[in-house]
Amino acid sequence: MSSTIRDIEEGLAFTPKFDSDGLVTAVATDAKSGELLMVAHMNAEALRKTVESGEAWYYSRSRKALWKKGESSGHVQRVLELRVDCDQDAVWLKVEQQGSGACHTGRRSCFYRAIPLGKSGAATLEFRNADKTFDPQSIYGRAPGRGSR
Amino acid sequence: MSSTIRDIEEGLAFTPKFDSDGLVTAVATDAKSGELLMVAHMNAEALRKTVESGEAWYYSRSRKALWKKGESSGHVQRVLELRVDCDQDAVWLKVEQQGSGACHTGRRSCFYRAIPLGKSGAATLEFRNADKTFDPQSIYGRAPGRGSR
Repeated sequence: MSSTIRDIEEGLAFTPKFDSDGLVTAVATDAKSGELLMVAHMNAEALRKTVESGEAWYYSRSRKALWKKGESSGHVQRVLELRVDCDQDAVWLKVEQQGSGACHTGRRSCFYRAIPLGKSGAATLEFRNADKTFDPQSIYGRAPGRGSR
Repeated sequence: MSSTIRDIEEGLAFTPKFDSDGLVTAVATDAKSGELLMVAHMNAEALRKTVESGEAWYYSRSRKALWKKGESSGHVQRVLELRVDCDQDAVWLKVEQQGSGACHTGRRSCFYRAIPLGKSGAATLEFRNADKTFDPQSIYGRAPGRGSR
């Protein structure tokens, strides 16, 4: 039985709408500061493990693999609250970020550059809160890629 | 000339990484409260219009069309800051939400239901801040769909 739009939007059954790759978008914010830490994806298994364990699991599109945040870095995300959006294709994790940061580049947040507004043509980014809070090489033991655990 | 990972992650050239559908993920938070309002997508044109105008434009995957947030509802999002993430496939809009809400269901945020943690099996959602702040029928003049403007 397929759900109606009303069921999906106003109902209490959790029926995640996975895209053609089997993924939903996952947005993690710092539960205390509200800062956006990272945007990633979850497949059904990552979602299930996150719900059951209360710690964030994701699915890496580049590595095509399930990963637990903090698995190698220790930078685990404890999920204080998990929410789903109106059409159930995105989830919001309010997390307590363990360790010094969420971004594999060594920063607290992945969003450390601003795009100037009111201009047309090619944009030059500006760093914002871009100081590194940890050394990714020493944490990951190699040059880390996106989705480094 | 293709960009290296270092260029993309540490450089100041804005080179958005669009997916196979030509989209990046766009996350809008309330600039004042930090609340996550909505998760949507932008194509190159939506991104350009957002940067140039300082107001949020998106691309609707279901309607396959560019749309300006607030175009029909008046619930425009004034973008106070726009950021890009490490691998440049997601942007973060810190917005001043005009009108009474961002969600087409009549709520301030699209994330008005929580998924209980620590359980296995089918989840029953719980409403959170789910009071309607506006009447979508009167705003949109019809039953609004996801991506209603």
